[in-house]
Amino acid sequence: MADGSPRTAGELGEFALVDAIAARFAQGPKVRIGPGDDAAVVEVSTGAVVASVDLVLQDRHFRLDWSSAADIGHKAAARSMSDVNAMGGVTTGLLVGLGCPPDVEASWLLDLADGIAEEAGLVGASVVGGDVSTAKTIVMSMSAFGECEHGVVRRSGARVGDVVAMAGRQGWAAGGFAVLGRGFRSPRLVVEAHRRPQPPYLAGPEAARSGATAMIDVSDGLLQDLGHLATAGGVGIDVARSRFEVPEPIQAVGAALGVDPMHLVLTGGDDYCLVATFPAAATLPQAWRQIGTVVEPGGPAPVTVDGEPYPEPGGHQHFR
Amino acid sequence: MADGSPRTAGELGEFALVDAIAARFAQGPKVRIGPGDDAAVVEVSTGAVVASVDLVLQDRHFRLDWSSAADIGHKAAARSMSDVNAMGGVTTGLLVGLGCPPDVEASWLLDLADGIAEEAGLVGASVVGGDVSTAKTIVMSMSAFGECEHGVVRRSGARVGDVVAMAGRQGWAAGGFAVLGRGFRSPRLVVEAHRRPQPPYLAGPEAARSGATAMIDVSDGLLQDLGHLATAGGVGIDVARSRFEVPEPIQAVGAALGVDPMHLVLTGGDDYCLVATFPAAATLPQAWRQIGTVVEPGGPAPVTVDGEPYPEPGGHQHFR
Repeated sequence: MADGSPRTAGELGEFALVDAIAARFAQGPKVRIGPGDDAAVVEVSTGAVVASVDLVLQDRHFRLDWSSAADIGHKAAARSMSDVNAMGGVTTGLLVGLGCPPDVEASWLLDLADGIAEEAGLVGASVVGGDVSTAKTIVMSMSAFGECEHGVVRRSGARVGDVVAMAGRQGWAAGGFAVLGRGFRSPRLVVEAHRRPQPPYLAGPEAARSGATAMIDVSDGLLQDLGHLATAGGVGIDVARSRFEVPEPIQAVGAALGVDPMHLVLTGGDDYCLVATFPAAATLPQAWRQIGTVVEPGGPAPVTVDGEPYPEPGGHQHFR
Repeated sequence: MADGSPRTAGELGEFALVDAIAARFAQGPKVRIGPGDDAAVVEVSTGAVVASVDLVLQDRHFRLDWSSAADIGHKAAARSMSDVNAMGGVTTGLLVGLGCPPDVEASWLLDLADGIAEEAGLVGASVVGGDVSTAKTIVMSMSAFGECEHGVVRRSGARVGDVVAMAGRQGWAAGGFAVLGRGFRSPRLVVEAHRRPQPPYLAGPEAARSGATAMIDVSDGLLQDLGHLATAGGVGIDVARSRFEVPEPIQAVGAALGVDPMHLVLTGGDDYCLVATFPAAATLPQAWRQIGTVVEPGGPAPVTVDGEPYPEPGGHQHFR
């Protein structure tokens, strides 16, 4: 800034930085104590809290040349809130741990905070606390907690004969990642999907209310995460290619890069869609559409596509 | 291991590593869903959850040559649970984010997990979930959540005339840090205090039950954290040197390093003792002893020692 006011985290110092960041976080009606005390206090009226944490690390989960600070904030919040969504819950509070080098610009950090706050606002959640520290690269942790008003849906309840259904988008973020990795910046819609996923936030509670028997969010890849549902339930899952419409931007990625666009849909991660199983007689709630069926275990693979094992189920695993 | 079984995080891979770590975490009676699903579910019977997060970073918050994996686990859990203690609460659940290089030994990570679990067990808390990732150095986030059965005590309620009291130890960890920094390993008791703090876990809820008007835990330094109480309450705080007995190991550190041992007590951090204010007429609960008085604001400093500003109030601030 031309007036010589503080520009970096180091110039501001911890306490001023925390105050500036905390000022970006509006507090919702369920928050009894927000940032500024030893801990936050948030109302829980259902008798239980749902809670999850994710690490968000520079050059592991985001690249500074691919995403803006606001993008990174949106995605970090989305990823954690998606875990609560996948239990059938709604996030009420977020806790943000933030480590960064002292020379990071304060405006970058405030944009990050704004991104987190905007994403949280989509479900009425508040950033209620956090911690800052110096670090060699940017490291974040995002803890989300909330409640399941319509009951909790676990990974393990799928039964043979259940319908397998999906809510939200699949393959978009993977398409964006693929084109960014080749040095392209288009199709714009898939690049934006990589930067800011659009989890179907209300589809989780809707599924719980409609009697979903098992649910998970797709963070690592559709087939891999369906594999977790199959394993946890002791069942098989068969996905039908014909149930998917491959959207135009993903077809464009496939054509441009010479890959099967359906492969992006089946193995891509980071869109944070939900997949769940429902009793065959259930009426699927509005956001949901069938993509397969729960079958007897002991088939050629825990998850099959049109009855056959999928040659490269893909998905992400750290340390591999 | 001689039998060639997996030895590093990279050799195990994310899923096997998570399974091995999760197996170390016993689940208490309040945990409805522990590790292994998209999120944890823990009972909350008081209508509100208390929650806090801390980052714990290699070479910022711990050194691998000064602390064992179990030490680091104990301290990381203690630091977060202390925040809940400082609200007058008891931790019921912890979420652990863990990033590390692939070549970290699995046994080191399991020792870390054991340390976290043992510390959590001191208050009946459970590690209910987490996240792992590859990272360049070891990064951890520790989120603690729990409940305040006897009411919440904030930082801001101190009133002129209140008694200022302390529960737990002060200056021990700073003494350990000072001798380790000079290359010594003794006195053993202060070095151990640096490695594994002993927060007075039940003193927070006790203070709440006894009508404490304000409370904070001392993580950065006694005078600095008392400053937060003074500022939040719009009051002054005067500490009396005569109220402190300087324990023998801290006297030994002072003698060996040529520093005033009382300085370690007044400015040291990382012991996670509690300081709180109580109405003058209150009977201090058992773990608590008076160290000062809440005075009118507008004195020579927000926090004074025997009526005078303290020349080097010390304390830690990131980015400075």
